[in-house]
Amino acid sequence: MPEFLALDTATAIDYVRKIPGLFPPDADLACTEIGDGNINFVFIVKDNKTGRSAVIKQSLPYLRSSGKDRLLTVDRARIENEALQLEYEMCPDLVPAIYHTDLNNALTVMEDISDHLNLRKGLIQRRKYPNFARHIGLFLARTLFLTSDLALDGKAKKALLSRFINPEMCEITEKLVFTVPYYDAVTTKYTPGAAAAGAALRENDALKFEAARLKDGFLTRAQALLHGDLHTGSIFVTETSTKVIDPEFAYFGPMGFDIGAVIGNLVLNYAAQAYHSPTPAEREDYRRYLLTTIEEVWRTFETEFSRLWDEQTVEVTAQAPGYKEYYIRSVLQDACGYGGCKAIRRIGRAQVEDFKAIPDEAARAAAEVYALALGEAMVLRREGISRIEDLTEMVKGIPEPAL
Amino acid sequence: MPEFLALDTATAIDYVRKIPGLFPPDADLACTEIGDGNINFVFIVKDNKTGRSAVIKQSLPYLRSSGKDRLLTVDRARIENEALQLEYEMCPDLVPAIYHTDLNNALTVMEDISDHLNLRKGLIQRRKYPNFARHIGLFLARTLFLTSDLALDGKAKKALLSRFINPEMCEITEKLVFTVPYYDAVTTKYTPGAAAAGAALRENDALKFEAARLKDGFLTRAQALLHGDLHTGSIFVTETSTKVIDPEFAYFGPMGFDIGAVIGNLVLNYAAQAYHSPTPAEREDYRRYLLTTIEEVWRTFETEFSRLWDEQTVEVTAQAPGYKEYYIRSVLQDACGYGGCKAIRRIGRAQVEDFKAIPDEAARAAAEVYALALGEAMVLRREGISRIEDLTEMVKGIPEPAL
Repeated sequence: MPEFLALDTATAIDYVRKIPGLFPPDADLACTEIGDGNINFVFIVKDNKTGRSAVIKQSLPYLRSSGKDRLLTVDRARIENEALQLEYEMCPDLVPAIYHTDLNNALTVMEDISDHLNLRKGLIQRRKYPNFARHIGLFLARTLFLTSDLALDGKAKKALLSRFINPEMCEITEKLVFTVPYYDAVTTKYTPGAAAAGAALRENDALKFEAARLKDGFLTRAQALLHGDLHTGSIFVTETSTKVIDPEFAYFGPMGFDIGAVIGNLVLNYAAQAYHSPTPAEREDYRRYLLTTIEEVWRTFETEFSRLWDEQTVEVTAQAPGYKEYYIRSVLQDACGYGGCKAIRRIGRAQVEDFKAIPDEAARAAAEVYALALGEAMVLRREGISRIEDLTEMVKGIPEPAL
Repeated sequence: MPEFLALDTATAIDYVRKIPGLFPPDADLACTEIGDGNINFVFIVKDNKTGRSAVIKQSLPYLRSSGKDRLLTVDRARIENEALQLEYEMCPDLVPAIYHTDLNNALTVMEDISDHLNLRKGLIQRRKYPNFARHIGLFLARTLFLTSDLALDGKAKKALLSRFINPEMCEITEKLVFTVPYYDAVTTKYTPGAAAAGAALRENDALKFEAARLKDGFLTRAQALLHGDLHTGSIFVTETSTKVIDPEFAYFGPMGFDIGAVIGNLVLNYAAQAYHSPTPAEREDYRRYLLTTIEEVWRTFETEFSRLWDEQTVEVTAQAPGYKEYYIRSVLQDACGYGGCKAIRRIGRAQVEDFKAIPDEAARAAAEVYALALGEAMVLRREGISRIEDLTEMVKGIPEPAL
């Protein structure tokens, strides 16, 4: 096995020069490293003559913060690369194109999407994206339907599944999403004013019961190939374009987990916006936009999934009367429950910027308490949901804590 | 890859002579072939001097009936071998010991259990086995609990799962158990008097809906390593001993599928016994024994599974109050549903001997109609079951068709 080549901004330029056809021989290349995580490098290489650019994402076998001794596997680089390729085949407009793959060095060279803004940042700035909901709804419907037993025969599905057994990344989700918030008083860390609400999770038997059921679904239900980490930070947007990146958590799990990641993160922003600055009218306008977006994500998913079901299902038993409607409703209930888990998990230790962006500590604490209440309702009341409006009405019906 | 050596009774003797320590050098070996299937050989080799014997099971890469040209993979031999080894580790008294493994030739040499009777034959003869229910209940509890996410951490479970992706054998189950009885009028073949009841399955929307849900569970729920084909023909018994063989269908699926296979096949015998020969008193005594056996299988499973849960669960979220009881009840409902599917599937084309043993055609047809009604009730009414007595009472409450 050749030695692992960890790139830096200089060797990254040398590296891309050797990829045939990517840049002209006389390109004037510049490179910057933009990775914000601890286990990956992300380089942008740009030709100052033509303006053409590319991104290199490299997974490291150690933590950047702790030197070279702590070893991780880089199988996640293969999984991310293969998932990206598959997603690109299913949704070419919604995923960066891959230019070059080098699994020996755990790296993928791909389309530069830095003209897009991270959706989480866009939401914090209260920007509206008229195409996002439709795009992500289509992404969800196509990737989830086309990798399920509905669209693949048993052998093809099992062959695909065997390429996406992802123990290391799944372990992170299993622990941080489903266990830590309910059992781990040490590693959870709420804004002081929200600590009591955080501690109450660990005493809430009904919530712990439902979290156990949802974790069991995450552990055991190989329903479709998931992105696995589809929060608003993995989605990049412009007014007209949407790109999904970073599927290193890809594995076969319950469809509702991906849909719930999108909905849960929109709900988090909805909670945080209740305490964001400008006028009440502006705030409420944006929060209405967020709920409308949730509804449009689901409706697009449902319409496209249903169309694919009618046109492309290979599973004979799926034609049983009423089964499609039952199946889609179950996915909605799962999405509601997993969305609630994702919301709860992002309050506390793994706090998202939506809340960090609230400067006033009391307001931030109130937003956290509110988000926990929304997440809890989504988990506990999911089985009463049969249309997306049931979910958005439920969210609207839970008042934000007064300051 | 060395050439595949298909054994015959002569080369089988040569083969076992070369296994160190299995037989003495001067053994007087005789061999018979006892396989009744089309894709495997089963040889018994016996030393006439010492009485010591061994079984060779060899999987063929072609169908015995159609010569050497129709190729199958023999990965099922690896899966069967590895599943047997694992089951032996968990339940050493309940599985034949393995003496020798040769995956290049798709064969396993193991303990000869021919002093045991096939349980299906024993049931047809109305024999009672005082230890069978307890033994199989323990086998189910241990193999299912110890290979689940309850007992294994995420990485260990996924590593095990990746060894038991079994597309070829699963495809057989997916098709014959969950699809053919409800959609395939050509390959189903009932005794003429039961043909109308068989055809009615294909018009029964509620049943097709539930069969679709249960098939989805079989396709997607990687809950534990299953035996995968645990009907009464895969179980061998004496008064004091029980041995489970033939796990070539092993894969990660819903626990209720294995438990349902046992219960469903006991229900099949219960239906057939209603039309078997001797006095009504003898018949009814035996049928009561069968229902008591179903109850004891489940109670043993439940007690042992619950004990393992209390003592060996590594999954933190499983401690949520009420979750264990909920989980076990869900397994019971799954077992009831899968048992119903297994019963329905064994009427018609894949008819079991329990029914073939009824010589009178009208009686056989009545038994088939009865078994279909029992299977249908188990599928449709499973979610109302919360104790095993609910299941046996339901079975008792469905009258056998008069002749």
